Amino acid sequence: MNQNYIIPNEWSIIEEGFHKENITTSESIFSIGNGAMGQRANFEETYTGETFQGSYIGGIYYPDKTRVGWWKNGYPKYFAKVLNAPNWIGIDIKIDNQLLDLAKCKVLNYRRELNMKDGILIRSFTAKFSDEKKIEVEAYRFLSLDFNEVGAIKYSVTPINFSGEIEFIPYLDAGIVNEDSNYDEFFWEILQIEEEETEAYILSKTFKTEFHVCTGMKIELALNDYEINLDKETEKTEKNISFKYKTNIKQGDTFTIYKYGSYTQSMNHPKAELIFAAEKVLQKAAIIGFDNLLDKQRFAWAKIWKTADIIIEGDLKAQQAIRFNIFQLNQTYSGKDSRLNIGPKGFTGEKYGGSTYWDTEAYCIPFYMSTKDKNVAKNLLLYRYNQLDKAIKNPELLGFNGGAALYPMVTMNGEECHNEWEITFEEIHRNGSMIYAIYNYVNYSGDYSYIPEFGMEVIIAIARFWCQRATFSSDKERYVILGVTGPNEYENNVNNNWYTNYLAKWCIEYTLENLGYLKDKFQSDYNRIISKTNLNEQEIKEMQTIATSMYFPYSEKNEVFLQQDGFLDKELIPVSELDSSQRPINQKWSWDRILRSPYIKQADVLQGIYFFENHFENHLIKDHFDFYEPLTVHESSLSPCVHSILASKINRIDKAYEMYLQTARLDLDDYNQEVHEGLHITSMAGTWLSIVQGFGGMRNFDNRLSFNPQIPSQWESYSFKINYRGNTLKVYKNHKTCEFINESDNPIDIYINNKKITLSQQMKVKI
Amino acid sequence: MNQNYIIPNEWSIIEEGFHKENITTSESIFSIGNGAMGQRANFEETYTGETFQGSYIGGIYYPDKTRVGWWKNGYPKYFAKVLNAPNWIGIDIKIDNQLLDLAKCKVLNYRRELNMKDGILIRSFTAKFSDEKKIEVEAYRFLSLDFNEVGAIKYSVTPINFSGEIEFIPYLDAGIVNEDSNYDEFFWEILQIEEEETEAYILSKTFKTEFHVCTGMKIELALNDYEINLDKETEKTEKNISFKYKTNIKQGDTFTIYKYGSYTQSMNHPKAELIFAAEKVLQKAAIIGFDNLLDKQRFAWAKIWKTADIIIEGDLKAQQAIRFNIFQLNQTYSGKDSRLNIGPKGFTGEKYGGSTYWDTEAYCIPFYMSTKDKNVAKNLLLYRYNQLDKAIKNPELLGFNGGAALYPMVTMNGEECHNEWEITFEEIHRNGSMIYAIYNYVNYSGDYSYIPEFGMEVIIAIARFWCQRATFSSDKERYVILGVTGPNEYENNVNNNWYTNYLAKWCIEYTLENLGYLKDKFQSDYNRIISKTNLNEQEIKEMQTIATSMYFPYSEKNEVFLQQDGFLDKELIPVSELDSSQRPINQKWSWDRILRSPYIKQADVLQGIYFFENHFENHLIKDHFDFYEPLTVHESSLSPCVHSILASKINRIDKAYEMYLQTARLDLDDYNQEVHEGLHITSMAGTWLSIVQGFGGMRNFDNRLSFNPQIPSQWESYSFKINYRGNTLKVYKNHKTCEFINESDNPIDIYINNKKITLSQQMKVKI
Repeated sequence: MNQNYIIPNEWSIIEEGFHKENITTSESIFSIGNGAMGQRANFEETYTGETFQGSYIGGIYYPDKTRVGWWKNGYPKYFAKVLNAPNWIGIDIKIDNQLLDLAKCKVLNYRRELNMKDGILIRSFTAKFSDEKKIEVEAYRFLSLDFNEVGAIKYSVTPINFSGEIEFIPYLDAGIVNEDSNYDEFFWEILQIEEEETEAYILSKTFKTEFHVCTGMKIELALNDYEINLDKETEKTEKNISFKYKTNIKQGDTFTIYKYGSYTQSMNHPKAELIFAAEKVLQKAAIIGFDNLLDKQRFAWAKIWKTADIIIEGDLKAQQAIRFNIFQLNQTYSGKDSRLNIGPKGFTGEKYGGSTYWDTEAYCIPFYMSTKDKNVAKNLLLYRYNQLDKAIKNPELLGFNGGAALYPMVTMNGEECHNEWEITFEEIHRNGSMIYAIYNYVNYSGDYSYIPEFGMEVIIAIARFWCQRATFSSDKERYVILGVTGPNEYENNVNNNWYTNYLAKWCIEYTLENLGYLKDKFQSDYNRIISKTNLNEQEIKEMQTIATSMYFPYSEKNEVFLQQDGFLDKELIPVSELDSSQRPINQKWSWDRILRSPYIKQADVLQGIYFFENHFENHLIKDHFDFYEPLTVHESSLSPCVHSILASKINRIDKAYEMYLQTARLDLDDYNQEVHEGLHITSMAGTWLSIVQGFGGMRNFDNRLSFNPQIPSQWESYSFKINYRGNTLKVYKNHKTCEFINESDNPIDIYINNKKITLSQQMKVKI
Repeated sequence: MNQNYIIPNEWSIIEEGFHKENITTSESIFSIGNGAMGQRANFEETYTGETFQGSYIGGIYYPDKTRVGWWKNGYPKYFAKVLNAPNWIGIDIKIDNQLLDLAKCKVLNYRRELNMKDGILIRSFTAKFSDEKKIEVEAYRFLSLDFNEVGAIKYSVTPINFSGEIEFIPYLDAGIVNEDSNYDEFFWEILQIEEEETEAYILSKTFKTEFHVCTGMKIELALNDYEINLDKETEKTEKNISFKYKTNIKQGDTFTIYKYGSYTQSMNHPKAELIFAAEKVLQKAAIIGFDNLLDKQRFAWAKIWKTADIIIEGDLKAQQAIRFNIFQLNQTYSGKDSRLNIGPKGFTGEKYGGSTYWDTEAYCIPFYMSTKDKNVAKNLLLYRYNQLDKAIKNPELLGFNGGAALYPMVTMNGEECHNEWEITFEEIHRNGSMIYAIYNYVNYSGDYSYIPEFGMEVIIAIARFWCQRATFSSDKERYVILGVTGPNEYENNVNNNWYTNYLAKWCIEYTLENLGYLKDKFQSDYNRIISKTNLNEQEIKEMQTIATSMYFPYSEKNEVFLQQDGFLDKELIPVSELDSSQRPINQKWSWDRILRSPYIKQADVLQGIYFFENHFENHLIKDHFDFYEPLTVHESSLSPCVHSILASKINRIDKAYEMYLQTARLDLDDYNQEVHEGLHITSMAGTWLSIVQGFGGMRNFDNRLSFNPQIPSQWESYSFKINYRGNTLKVYKNHKTCEFINESDNPIDIYINNKKITLSQQMKVKI
């Protein structure tokens, strides 16, 4: 553990005492978001210490000129950057002409709280200036879930030991740059700066992509809770606008500024109407008022928690951590808009660029699918469906054809934007997880109609890719898949990665199975799809041949599938024998040394065993776990969860708990000393999976919902809720008992030890 | 063939007629150099059309900030750039105030000749201005072999149809940038600009590396061959200095400027004395005078040709090409300075950076060794010896230790400056060629003393690297070398590249053999080396074990060694079946497709068979050639020569000739449409090898010089000369006979068909 200043609390993330060295880390951890936009927990007032200012709008990106040492054919020309957007939270504070700046004042009673129950960020402190004047400050901020173009701030200042002049200088600043710009380019062009009575607007657009964004603010003032009006002075520069409100207040009086901020943008409004739209939404927010908006915010979060909460008794830090993860996932993606997705850092930082990785399909969809309405997961599937044309275009650059799709490794708009040949061109297993996600969704939701309506086209295009990518080895008399990188990115350009081959074979089989089913049951959809995709009998026959004759590397001696051809040539020294000075190897070792080593970054063979657990007998799961886990360094945030789930599966609850700990507080305790760059949003879904699929043993294979709850000795009890086909099911487990509570008005069928149990409405079953 | 404008001639490269589209290509082809400096054949007068100005000084480089997309541990931070140096050739010409600019004048009778016999560049043309005035221009330029800091220009202008005012404006320009600068940085700082009567000097230094260079010029003028003096006007800017000489001359009179230029630099002089050194050398050159300098130049080149010439009868283009290659190799490297080496583009361009690749050891050393004094090859070996400390430091970054050396892939000063993990960290076979070059040198020169004096330390350090890099595979019960890139760079990160494993085993065995020999015969050297390297018995024993138990991939079915593990999994479709629209694959295919294909960029297994031909029966050479050559795309300029040599070896003289043609006129006919970027200097050595080792069958295994001359049907005869242990041997071959002529005063032993023949002094033997 690398930091320890977050105070344990069941519903809040709390920091007490002001420490400059924690600022950028806390800016990440206390981030807020509403699915459409999000921001780091930067201060409203000036802060001249080290800070990483960040505010982001879902879907708005910039195609930054890529930085590549040695160009390879097929590389995309740009890297899509999540765009740091204009700052609307800024409020400079002056006390008798002294600027409030926590880097320079003495700071007392500093406290920051991210209240996850209500979805609000609260900060309070006392600042002492060099002339001994002291003020008390309280700041509340949230981004509205109900009106997702709006955020609201309530910022109050109370002079403690003096009466004097206070200035509030709220501003909009569009002179924002991305920290990770490759060539220090400025990504925004400022088009218009407008001012009205208590409102200001900056209309700007991104270069190249031409997204238009209007950033707005509306100001209200109050003295001791009574609204007041003050004259203002306006200052405008090329890239920002500020209002100055000045007044004299008495010792003990509280001067408050309400600042409503908004982003309206061209994905949602005509470009010409963005300022008007901003006016409308800000005026509406002001009419509703801060307190009522906050009530609505509480209500909206209560609704989320109702089907998503996990309660852990007997371990406050675990309780805090799991809620933090659930909270951040909900801040990042609300599921309302199929054009958005879940960036690896959400709205909390810029690193990695793009918004979409295979993390979404492999880790995030199960979370959203189980805690929200089925349309949320469906929107994530539709995101890929809507990008199918581009996924078919991508591999054409690589020499594929005939409607074969390769979904990008990293994308914002469906085009690949990653440029490392060993990843971009070779980490093709990602393609399989697109089909897996459809399979997973259909199994969980029971909504088979997604396949004839949308999914089948994606499935066929991906199966085609696999068929073209597999080649026949005369030597092995089997189809092989050469030159790939598996989920374990500590191997590059290997032949016959078992996971990739297995997934490819399954994808093709699933394609054939669904083709058959559609032909039988959805004749008109079938005809439409066949005609649209030009799939013919010859191709189908080829698919059958390839699926039947796929090669899998296997060790007779060890009785395990091999991660890839030649894996046994490595020196198989377990991680436990590595000197700790050598860890993490991705920081200590050169790339070739990592590649030659047997060490596994994240589940690879075990990722396949996890996905297709129902294909493997328990003893095989155990054998593979015992062979691979000791070689795994878990240097991806997505690694521990899969291992935790499998450890639970094979009844190694202590191992499962050990793995769970590596994922649960990854960001809160900043294990990798990099949280200042942003949170690991997608791996938070893995934490949730570790509990629900791991300890809870929830599965949804074969259209059945099954459980096998266990509990780590460190906890007294835990319970989680899921939304299963529109109904809320609660699972409670302590060391003596296990309860399943149907909180809805429809019966739910579940399976325990292969035995079906029907839970009637509102019924509780103990086992 | 992609161009056809070079006029065939046995001793000259000739271009006639002015064609703007050929300018940058000709600038490369007509390049001149003297081993210490070199330059592209840019015009002296202004040229506003497309041109690539380039003048380079041996050893002067700049550590350009590297451009890398995704950083990997162990990458070097800079890429050493061959530095484009101040321009000293410039002479602006004005006729009645009109600037001579071939891009704008009408150009008649344009002719350019690179006379390779004498080492001089000659250009002549008639230019017609818009006012119909015509002048005749003749320009001679050479870089002196004898005074290698000096170049000389004789530039004459004759008005043809008018009398009028002519201005000569010779200048020095230090405002030079590299075409290939990564971040458009300027690499030079101008320190001082000095002017004397007829001389000017610019002292500049490189940023970071702080090389100091004084660029100088000295001017003399003549009218109809009589020296004249004219007053001049001087103009200085921040980065250049020019003299203006103006005079009126009559129709038919010839006005000539002699411009002596020089680079004196801090590798050879104290920094404070550079201007003085330049004065001295320029004044000396002027005293000797242009004509006498040129005589010396002819004499120096005659001496080179005496032991290096190859004569081909019956094929003028082949004659021209082989002399071009020999000429450029001698322009690039004179062998006098062990701090210099042979950059892949010599002094003719900037691409690739660095000055030293394994090309030097594998291809260039045999050429210099056989055509020049043995000290030339020895200096190339010493270059690596002097960089041994850095070669030991390089792999420490990669986790090696204990005095193991990994020589860099690309270097200027011994530090690696290439940043592609699959090359930098994995193309480690280069290390073996360092030992091979020593072995080759000792065999050819008979100078065993190099090993105890210098070579052994390098040999031990490299053997240590191999021992650490090889690991034991319990599965194979053999030592394996995982994660490498062989000479065929169309495979990356493969296991057990046969060439690498074979070379590694041989390196270790050669180490052990020499250790034994030194212990026996050079006791005191042995003790010194053992103590300096801390080599102990345990390590020696380990070396033995590893050499004995090295693994080699082999196909029983095909009866060939396999390029790497898993090679037979590929679809082995011969290159001849590839559609021509797919070639070259490195331009048409994505990287992953190339990697998955069986196609071979340059000799890989066959490189090993070539190096160790004496280890393999003829039928094995044939089998391997027949297995691998059909899969080879020869997309490296270093590929055809090895295949040509092996084809000769197995008596496929037509195939050998086909391969020879791919290398001989690579640059003259611009096969790859890239000659404008510079010449392929190192591959020129391959052309020489194709004739001498290929058709001539020269070998020097086991301390014996052997031959097996054959002749392609397209030629009438050919002859080559070599310097063998201080003696000149000429080999002549036509379709009837073969002659060996000892042109020296000592006997020479040669072997034909394993039979020793002793050639007495000046003796000719026909066989």
